[in-house]
Amino acid sequence: MSAPLRLGIAGLGTVGIGVVDLIRTEGALIAARAGRPVKIVAVSARDRARDRGADLSAFAWEDDPVALARRGDIDVFVELMGGENGPARAATEAAIAAGKDVVTANKALLAHHGQALAEAAEAAGRVIRFEAAVAGGIPVIKALTEGLAANRIRRVMGVMNGTCNYILTRMESAGLPYEAVFEEARQLGYLEADPRLDVDGIDAGHKLSILAALAFGTRVAFGAVELEGIGRIAIEDIRHAAELGFRIKLLGVAQMTGRGLEQRMSPCLVPADSPLGQLQGGTNMVVLEGSAAGQIVLRGAGAGAGPTASAVMADVIDLARGTRYPTFGVPAATLAESVGASVAAPAPYYLRLTLQDKPGALAKVAAVLGDAGISIDRMRQRGHSEPTAPVIIVTHKTTRDDVNHAISRFAATGVVVGETVAIRIEAV
Amino acid sequence: MSAPLRLGIAGLGTVGIGVVDLIRTEGALIAARAGRPVKIVAVSARDRARDRGADLSAFAWEDDPVALARRGDIDVFVELMGGENGPARAATEAAIAAGKDVVTANKALLAHHGQALAEAAEAAGRVIRFEAAVAGGIPVIKALTEGLAANRIRRVMGVMNGTCNYILTRMESAGLPYEAVFEEARQLGYLEADPRLDVDGIDAGHKLSILAALAFGTRVAFGAVELEGIGRIAIEDIRHAAELGFRIKLLGVAQMTGRGLEQRMSPCLVPADSPLGQLQGGTNMVVLEGSAAGQIVLRGAGAGAGPTASAVMADVIDLARGTRYPTFGVPAATLAESVGASVAAPAPYYLRLTLQDKPGALAKVAAVLGDAGISIDRMRQRGHSEPTAPVIIVTHKTTRDDVNHAISRFAATGVVVGETVAIRIEAV
Repeated sequence: MSAPLRLGIAGLGTVGIGVVDLIRTEGALIAARAGRPVKIVAVSARDRARDRGADLSAFAWEDDPVALARRGDIDVFVELMGGENGPARAATEAAIAAGKDVVTANKALLAHHGQALAEAAEAAGRVIRFEAAVAGGIPVIKALTEGLAANRIRRVMGVMNGTCNYILTRMESAGLPYEAVFEEARQLGYLEADPRLDVDGIDAGHKLSILAALAFGTRVAFGAVELEGIGRIAIEDIRHAAELGFRIKLLGVAQMTGRGLEQRMSPCLVPADSPLGQLQGGTNMVVLEGSAAGQIVLRGAGAGAGPTASAVMADVIDLARGTRYPTFGVPAATLAESVGASVAAPAPYYLRLTLQDKPGALAKVAAVLGDAGISIDRMRQRGHSEPTAPVIIVTHKTTRDDVNHAISRFAATGVVVGETVAIRIEAV
Repeated sequence: MSAPLRLGIAGLGTVGIGVVDLIRTEGALIAARAGRPVKIVAVSARDRARDRGADLSAFAWEDDPVALARRGDIDVFVELMGGENGPARAATEAAIAAGKDVVTANKALLAHHGQALAEAAEAAGRVIRFEAAVAGGIPVIKALTEGLAANRIRRVMGVMNGTCNYILTRMESAGLPYEAVFEEARQLGYLEADPRLDVDGIDAGHKLSILAALAFGTRVAFGAVELEGIGRIAIEDIRHAAELGFRIKLLGVAQMTGRGLEQRMSPCLVPADSPLGQLQGGTNMVVLEGSAAGQIVLRGAGAGAGPTASAVMADVIDLARGTRYPTFGVPAATLAESVGASVAAPAPYYLRLTLQDKPGALAKVAAVLGDAGISIDRMRQRGHSEPTAPVIIVTHKTTRDDVNHAISRFAATGVVVGETVAIRIEAV
């Protein structure tokens, strides 16, 4: 058996300790599969004194992750600190400059600096691996970059933030409003320290931008992701969607269109009986559509110590076995500048509007939609006793622009009151 | 860019032509991702004159696949002929002896001769790759061998024969008996030339034995797979199962137990609302349960030219990139002799028996079950007008032996007529 592969681990939170535990408990198995032992040489974290429930005495300690990254006795720098800048970025750059391979779980870092890091790594003859950065324990980076390497990718979709999916699922099952479930999730410790990373779709958007770069051979472009969070999803929309046979998911979609690369992370209606629609709670799902393989669906735990450590160690074992290819699957210099599609592809929309109970009210709404070029697939108005009533409309395929245009005209009808909700229906 | 990777393709059926087409249409994309061009140098098939709808004029032709395998101008021998012996085996052995890497879609070959081939390949410093041998376009070999490489695998499950799943799904949706749907499937061309490979679970059993070897580090042992086909599944069992919230699937299960390796490919009841239960038609699904990653579900097309060619080319691209590790993930010499578990782990069972309408009949059946140590979870007897009536029983966890023992005692009760059906209920 060859010489050990020597790791330096920066960051000893849930995931870092998960990796330490995994190597401790499954070291023999990992060595057998890797063809050589995998050994932690040194670790780094903010607070050396903190009790992390793991014996770290066999490892050298560095207070400074940059110093860890430069150590002469490590082969692979494992970055598990997180954050798009600061120590994570500095240490990753230092590791590459010092000739180390890098394994990272840091989606924010890659979403913001992926191109520069990939170029630096290739110039130094090093590789960056990041299976743990997207969808936790699901080997989706591998499936996309290796398993479907002979495919032109048509579309990538996914539910990639377990916390948002937990909130939406729980709103439906318990009939609770967003604010109440958000508070529950906070108390359960499901939310990031800055919850906007979860509920505004930023974390999931980071992941989508990484998948899009891999899928379409473009430079990672998080800034071009159309982001919309779940904070405005009302319990009545979840109920109306369910009655129509849909569920609302925070869904990421990336596809190459005639107008450029479309990247969206936003609430969408999906059929309740589709694999995405059936996804409950904190589980993640990624759907890959390949020109040859067709639709591949991957499902599993998107977070947690075990699943994320599993993904980190898959990358480490690949490196131990000698697997090496460019960060985004092709040389960084050949990645195309990402030209963002300014308009999303047409889709049906779900509309909820509140109508005054006047004769001809529905006809006025229908006329506005017709004038905007939007045709109606289904319309529902519930029996009611109040002077206003909710009306649910499912349109045929249209654009967000046309929908917004129609909504702006509703006020002038004199029969639509309050805000009109519009949510895209994604064909999955 | 490096020198081309040169392929020799033996077998020009659906899959072989699929690979030729994929390289022709996506050659530039494949070269970009592989880091070098992938080039077909020579091909071989039984009948040179046959029109295959593809231009093969640029490739050298060999009538004999063994001669193809030995050509000095190929790097990788791509075996797409099929069959556990005969030309496929001879040519694969010849390729290894001649120092070629091998990519194969041949599950039967690996299920029967995987250990010997892996040893020969390692002795020659060559690798054998076989993503296309299991679950078509789904990168499940990669997920198991690489993606979950840091996991102790708890259980592998799967629906891996699309034809059987089509037949079972169609029986339920159309309310047709097995024989009628079998005939439909034959006319649609869904069945192998020898349909027993499909409906007796042999093809799926081959796949399961390969996954089990990868998952548990054991020598592939197809002979130890407990095989039961779908030919005896009655439409009334599908109906009763549905009423109880289950679907019947030809389900493969491999798990390491205290009594050895359990490998089963047999009809099972699974919850209708589980991912496996929801799988319709010809789609495949594999469930991997890892100690760290938890449950990973993979779903996609299990057959067809595109999906299978996608898997073949994923292996080829891996080889072009320089990815190399032993055939079953660890050195062949370290694979443990597979000690088969003689008895499957306990599970609940579904029983359907026909009872004479006599006072105390149900009590007699219950007494036999009680004597066999089997406790009853649910029992259903339908209102009826005939002198006999079907009774459906769901047991608590028990063993197949205890079930068989109880069934053998039913005759002596004088109230059970005809055959009693017993189907395992798998917790998924």
